[in-house]
Amino acid sequence: MLVNKQHYRSIWRIKKQSQPSVVAIIDQTKLPFSFEVVEIADYKQMTQAIKTMQVRGAPLIGASAAYGVALAVQQSAQNEFLISAMAEIQKSRPTAVNLAWAIARMKQRLFALDESDRLQAAWDEAQAICDEDVVLNQAIGVHGLSVIKQMQANNVDQSKVINILTHCNAGWLATVDVGTALAPIYTAHDAGLPIHVWVDETRPRNQGASLTAWELGQHGVNHTVISDNAGGHLMQHGEIDMVIVGADRVTRVGDVCNKIGTYLKALAAADNNVPFYVAVPSPTIDWEMSDGLAEIPIEMRGSNELAEMVGMNDQGEVVTVNIMPEGTKLANPAFDVTPAKYVTGIVTEAGVCQPEMLPQLLTIRN
Amino acid sequence: MLVNKQHYRSIWRIKKQSQPSVVAIIDQTKLPFSFEVVEIADYKQMTQAIKTMQVRGAPLIGASAAYGVALAVQQSAQNEFLISAMAEIQKSRPTAVNLAWAIARMKQRLFALDESDRLQAAWDEAQAICDEDVVLNQAIGVHGLSVIKQMQANNVDQSKVINILTHCNAGWLATVDVGTALAPIYTAHDAGLPIHVWVDETRPRNQGASLTAWELGQHGVNHTVISDNAGGHLMQHGEIDMVIVGADRVTRVGDVCNKIGTYLKALAAADNNVPFYVAVPSPTIDWEMSDGLAEIPIEMRGSNELAEMVGMNDQGEVVTVNIMPEGTKLANPAFDVTPAKYVTGIVTEAGVCQPEMLPQLLTIRN
Repeated sequence: MLVNKQHYRSIWRIKKQSQPSVVAIIDQTKLPFSFEVVEIADYKQMTQAIKTMQVRGAPLIGASAAYGVALAVQQSAQNEFLISAMAEIQKSRPTAVNLAWAIARMKQRLFALDESDRLQAAWDEAQAICDEDVVLNQAIGVHGLSVIKQMQANNVDQSKVINILTHCNAGWLATVDVGTALAPIYTAHDAGLPIHVWVDETRPRNQGASLTAWELGQHGVNHTVISDNAGGHLMQHGEIDMVIVGADRVTRVGDVCNKIGTYLKALAAADNNVPFYVAVPSPTIDWEMSDGLAEIPIEMRGSNELAEMVGMNDQGEVVTVNIMPEGTKLANPAFDVTPAKYVTGIVTEAGVCQPEMLPQLLTIRN
Repeated sequence: MLVNKQHYRSIWRIKKQSQPSVVAIIDQTKLPFSFEVVEIADYKQMTQAIKTMQVRGAPLIGASAAYGVALAVQQSAQNEFLISAMAEIQKSRPTAVNLAWAIARMKQRLFALDESDRLQAAWDEAQAICDEDVVLNQAIGVHGLSVIKQMQANNVDQSKVINILTHCNAGWLATVDVGTALAPIYTAHDAGLPIHVWVDETRPRNQGASLTAWELGQHGVNHTVISDNAGGHLMQHGEIDMVIVGADRVTRVGDVCNKIGTYLKALAAADNNVPFYVAVPSPTIDWEMSDGLAEIPIEMRGSNELAEMVGMNDQGEVVTVNIMPEGTKLANPAFDVTPAKYVTGIVTEAGVCQPEMLPQLLTIRN
């Protein structure tokens, strides 16, 4: 994707001459105020980057975990060390299934090899996970485009703007490139379709306002930021034609775990006959779970995320302010689960289907 | 209500010796960081205070408008001047019906009198509106208490905490005293019932975090602030026993116009069989409207409310920061309408009823 007209991925390896490689990430806690590339030198630093959300978004967490494993192998390729490093990386965040998926894949690849062959294989496998993510997301973009085109075909006036609501950030910053929920949006924009995106602010971490608005702006996609409270009202008044969100985990029956507040938008969409789509690559599907509400672990994050707000003061300095009355008790669940019955369709790399048809659509992984 | 253990109303007249009276308000844009009483000297200043939300909340807007009219009469009791002043006050905000109601009441009272009798009558009528508001809210508290007691009676364990969610601020700061949605909560707390309040942050102006959390804290009521996105998730997990909100306007059929985001909580309540109550005094009911979605004017407020956040920096200074990417387009509808079908009960000064029974319950005003 483009940043100041230059192409970037959200994560990449930097080979250094006669020195260990490092992994470059974009520090997402600094956006939208500054675009900073950080070099990660070891797996503990990568674990920390995942925990503190310098990298975030289910697919990117998977890619970061894979690179974290490669950094660990660079330190030592011995079984005992790697098992402990992988366990540490895996504990960094609980909800996105891609994290466990990427580590399981690295484990399977590496432990079949002699120690001496593991480093090259680890870098190759992490790179492969990244490259595959991009291909999956491009395919999601193409399948999602057909949904948007169908919506346009149903309009009497073909030039009528199609209004799409999204929650949180499931754009290229949440993936290696292209995005999941935003893939159909970018693809439609590039195809010249008249689209406009309503961007939920996404409290408490404001990923919509800070990340989605920023990356849509960099790509020139028409968008408007709204408070998380506004989406229902806009749907009641016909201002939203469809909702597309990403997910951190989707169960085999199509329950969708995504950023807190997604469920409320799904309810409003159902109440107003607005189609509600979830865009996910197959690594985000957890085939072992069937009851999302009962089984998916929901991360409780620190109360400082609610109490503190980062912004720019009138001197152009980025500062943190506390917005709560002193001593206020806070609770901060980070995700919620939208039952499959509220999901119109799931957009995967293999096509679009109703939630209950996921296993049939993706038989290869079932 | 109590502020630092001292009793306050949210608005009151200050008589000055051989000088015109002024009206004292609490500047709610300064809370929770500082408690500041501002003296309003004329109706234009009161109009501005309503517009900028130094005073806000439907009942308090009504009381402020009444006092604004009294301040206008203090300037000139002539018909032409008063008609123009009243029109100006009435234009300050569009959604709360109490504003028009209070002005109509002042008009009826004053224009029946000679000019020379109008000033005393205006102060008396404004005071009467305030006193009546307190009595109405106390009655709402008593009727709401019976709902909470019934909920407690249904629990096997009587000491089990009753969890109540509220959105925005419908506390004493939104009224003259006691509050509407918070009246049952204060009454239950004072009666020794084990209650805990989930306080929606209420973006974009954060009235939940800034005002509701602050006033509940001053009164010693157990509470936790959450993001607006979290309520649905908490309901799915049985963490919320009931919802109580206030309203800016309720139609004769029971459609509820309240702070943006209320509708989303009503949908979640319905989806999880959580009772959803609306507490309103009868002046908030608009008997002339029957279709809330089509008829109630929804105020679009400035985009700065979304882009700018007020908080305390690490030097203890209250500062404003901008939290959006530069040049981001924003939209800020301030209210939404919850259709009557999602409302379990309306708590008024005359009792609790299903939305469709409002006219029967309040026959005196129908």
